Amino acid sequence: MSKSIVIIGCGAAGLSAALNARKTDRNANITIIEQEEYPAYSRCALPFVIGGEIKDINSLLAFSPSMYKMMRIDLRLKSRVIDVDSKSKTVMYIDHQSREENLHYDSLILTTGASPIIPPINGVNKRGVYVLRTINDCKSIIEASSNSKNAIVIGAGLVGLETADALYRRGLNVTVFEILPSILRASLDEDMAEIVKSSIEGKGVKIFVNRRIDEITGDDRVDGIISDGERFKADMVVLATGVRANTELAEKIGVQTGVTGAIKVNSRMETTVKGIYAAGDCVESRHIITSQAVLSQLGTTAVKQGRVAGINAAGGYATFPGVLNSMVSRIFNLEVGSTGLNTLQAESYGFKVFTGSVTWKTRAEYYPEAKSIRVKLLFERGSLKIIGGQIIGGEFVAPRIDSIAQAIQSGMTVFDIIDSETCYSPPLANTWSPITLAAESALSKIKVT
Amino acid sequence: MSKSIVIIGCGAAGLSAALNARKTDRNANITIIEQEEYPAYSRCALPFVIGGEIKDINSLLAFSPSMYKMMRIDLRLKSRVIDVDSKSKTVMYIDHQSREENLHYDSLILTTGASPIIPPINGVNKRGVYVLRTINDCKSIIEASSNSKNAIVIGAGLVGLETADALYRRGLNVTVFEILPSILRASLDEDMAEIVKSSIEGKGVKIFVNRRIDEITGDDRVDGIISDGERFKADMVVLATGVRANTELAEKIGVQTGVTGAIKVNSRMETTVKGIYAAGDCVESRHIITSQAVLSQLGTTAVKQGRVAGINAAGGYATFPGVLNSMVSRIFNLEVGSTGLNTLQAESYGFKVFTGSVTWKTRAEYYPEAKSIRVKLLFERGSLKIIGGQIIGGEFVAPRIDSIAQAIQSGMTVFDIIDSETCYSPPLANTWSPITLAAESALSKIKVT
Repeated sequence: MSKSIVIIGCGAAGLSAALNARKTDRNANITIIEQEEYPAYSRCALPFVIGGEIKDINSLLAFSPSMYKMMRIDLRLKSRVIDVDSKSKTVMYIDHQSREENLHYDSLILTTGASPIIPPINGVNKRGVYVLRTINDCKSIIEASSNSKNAIVIGAGLVGLETADALYRRGLNVTVFEILPSILRASLDEDMAEIVKSSIEGKGVKIFVNRRIDEITGDDRVDGIISDGERFKADMVVLATGVRANTELAEKIGVQTGVTGAIKVNSRMETTVKGIYAAGDCVESRHIITSQAVLSQLGTTAVKQGRVAGINAAGGYATFPGVLNSMVSRIFNLEVGSTGLNTLQAESYGFKVFTGSVTWKTRAEYYPEAKSIRVKLLFERGSLKIIGGQIIGGEFVAPRIDSIAQAIQSGMTVFDIIDSETCYSPPLANTWSPITLAAESALSKIKVT
Repeated sequence: MSKSIVIIGCGAAGLSAALNARKTDRNANITIIEQEEYPAYSRCALPFVIGGEIKDINSLLAFSPSMYKMMRIDLRLKSRVIDVDSKSKTVMYIDHQSREENLHYDSLILTTGASPIIPPINGVNKRGVYVLRTINDCKSIIEASSNSKNAIVIGAGLVGLETADALYRRGLNVTVFEILPSILRASLDEDMAEIVKSSIEGKGVKIFVNRRIDEITGDDRVDGIISDGERFKADMVVLATGVRANTELAEKIGVQTGVTGAIKVNSRMETTVKGIYAAGDCVESRHIITSQAVLSQLGTTAVKQGRVAGINAAGGYATFPGVLNSMVSRIFNLEVGSTGLNTLQAESYGFKVFTGSVTWKTRAEYYPEAKSIRVKLLFERGSLKIIGGQIIGGEFVAPRIDSIAQAIQSGMTVFDIIDSETCYSPPLANTWSPITLAAESALSKIKVT
C-alpha cells in the first residue's frame, strides 16, 4: 500500500518537502493542507512588489495549482488544521467549504511557518496599521500607500527596511523607528549598520534608533505615533518587529519546542514525536559555528530543511547541516549581506574575535562601472578561523557572502583566505578581491609569529 | 649600509615587488629598470580601451612617476639591461640617453615579462599586422581601426576574443581564426566553448576553428589572409597567438628555465641563482592541484608573485602557494570564467573526472534583471574533490569563480559544496545557487553509497 504523507502548510518549506517526498517515493500519497488561498509563493519578494520592481504578483507563485496536480500533490487550500491525533495518525481539518475532514498519515510534516509579532503598543489595532507577511498584506499596503503621504515603519530589521525602501519608491515620506541601538542588528555590527543608515538618511528617509513607540494615535484610523513623548504624523504604519514561530498545533500534539520557542528537530528534521517532521520558520536550527539552537527563518533555510524533511518522511535519508544565517538584501540601492556571527553574537557566545575591514572597488578602479564595496570579516583568536562576514556594496554582495559562508563551513583560517586565488579582469573584478584585503587587514591587527 | 634591490621590468610583478620590498625594508635602495616609456599599467585593460569603454588610456597607469619618487623607488624608464654579472652583483644597462650604466645590487628581481609569439606565417611582417601587448600596440590598433572595415584576429584565446570584441565595438567586420578545435581552449571544455562561440557568432562575427593560416596577403600592406586555401579580405590583422616568457637575460646570467621554458623558481620566488628572484609572466608556476610546473601569465599571479619576490628580496619571508589559473573576462557581453583544471587538462594528468552542469538564473527567475548563468564543475572520482569549474553568464561570474577556486584550495568534496549555505534575496540572488545545483547534477551521475 502507498505511504501517506501529510504536510501542514504550503510555504517554501512545505512545497520543498512535497517535491522531495515525491522524488523519493513515486507512489506516496502526498497532501498539503494550507490556510491561505495561495499555494507557495516567494514571501521575500513582497517588498519588491510594493516597490514596483516586480509588476505581477502572480509571478511569485512557485507553481500553479495545475502543476501540483501534475506532480500528484493533493493541494487543499483555505483549509485549517484543528487537531492531530498522533496515536491514530489522523489530521483533522476544516476544508474550504467549512466541512470538517479527517486524513490519515504515515508521516506528518509541520511547516506551519511564523506570524508577525504584534508589539504591545496602544493603538496597534487601529485601521491603517499593517504587517507584511502575506500576499493579502502586500495588496493592502499597496492600496493604503496610494492614499497616503506619510508612512511610519516600526522596526529596522530586514523586512522593515525593505518595506521602507518600497514605500519610498512609491513616493511616500517614510520614517523608521527602531527600539535597538542600531539597524539590522541581527546581521550587522554597529560600524557597518551606521554606513547603511547614513546612506538611507541621505535619501531623506529618517531613521530613529533607540526609540520606543509609546502609542499609535488616531481615532478609528491611525494619524500618527508618539515616540518618547514626541509626536509624528502618519497616514499608515507598518509593523516589522519580527516573526514568531507558529507552534500552537505542535504543542497541542505534544511535539516539544526548544529554548528559542520554536519546534525542536534533529538533523533529519524529525520532531520529538516519531513520524512527525517539521521544517522552515516554525523550527529551531542548529548553528554551524556554535552548535547552539538558533532561529533561522530564512527562505533558503526553509527550502533546504523542507527537502530534508520530505526525503526522510518518504523513507529516504537526508540530514540538514545547520545554519550560518547567511542573508542578503537590497536596501535603498545598497546591497547588504552577512553570514556567520557578528561581533555582538560572537562575544555573547564567548568567542574572542579580531576583525578586518576594507572599502574597495568591485571592478578595476579606472573602469567606469566600478562600484564601492565594504567587507568586514571576523576571525576567532587562537584558531584564526573565520567566523563571520558582513558586506555592504553597490554590487556582487550576494556571491561574495556565499564565498564567506563556504570559507566558514570549510574551517578556513585568515591565512587560507589570504592565499585563496581570485580572478581578475578590469570590467568584472579588481586585481585584489575585497575578501582577501579584509583578511589582510585582520591579520595586520594581531601578532602572529 | 642600506640594501640595494634592483628590479628589471616595471610591469605588474615589478611594481608589486618594489612596493612590497619598500614595505619590508624602509631603508633599501630600490631601483626599477624598464624598457618601455611607461611605468606599470594594466595590460589586461588594453582591449577595453580599444573597445571604447575606458576613455583615458592614462588611467591605466598604476602610479604616476611622481608617486614612485614619493615611495623612494628609483624608476629608470626607456632603459635596457644588457647584462648582469652575478658574481660582482652588477647590472649593466643602457639608459634613456643611450649611456651605458652599471648598478650594484644585493638582491635582483627579474620581472621581464613575456612577448607575443609571432607565428611563422608568410607575410606576418607586412604593415597592418598587429599584436596587442603594450600601450603603443593599443594606440596603433586604435589608429588602424579608424581606417579599416574588415579585421581578422588570429587566435581565439582570451586576448584574441577580447580584441575581436573591441574591434566589433568600433564598428569593424571581424573574423576570428583558431588553429585548435575550440575557442578558449586553455580554459573551457568544448561544450562550454561552443556556447560562447555561438553567442559571438550571433552578433555577426565569424569564428573559424581548426583552421591554419597559410599566408597573410598584400603587397607592402596587408589585404587579407589565405586559410586552408580560402581567401579572406582584411584591412588589418591582429595576431593573438599567445605569449612567450622573456628569458634571454635570465639564461645569459645562468638562471635555469624549466620544462615550460619559463624561469624556474622556488616557493619564495628565488631562481636557481642565489639572490636573484623572478616573478610574473617570465616564470613558471606550480599548479595547486597537480603540483606540476605550469605557465600562469595572469595579472593576478604577477602581482602576488611580485609581492612574494619583493618581500624576500628585502630580507623578509613569504611564499607563493601556487596557481589554479583562475581567469575571467567579458567577451561580447558574456562573462566567461574558469579555475582549476578543465576536462582535457585533468585527463592529461591522469585524473578520472565526473562533471555536473546547470543553466540557471542569477536572481529570482521572476525578477526582471535576472540573467542566465551556466556553471560546470569537475570532480575527481574516488576522492570526490572539486578540481575545476567553468562559468558563462550574464553577471556575477567573477565572484562565483573565486568561490570555486576557494573550494578547490580548501579540498572540498561534492558533498561539502552541496551543503554550503548560500544567501538569497529576489533582486540579488536565486534561492539555490548555481554552484550548489551544478554539484548536485554531478553527484547524480555517480553512484555513492
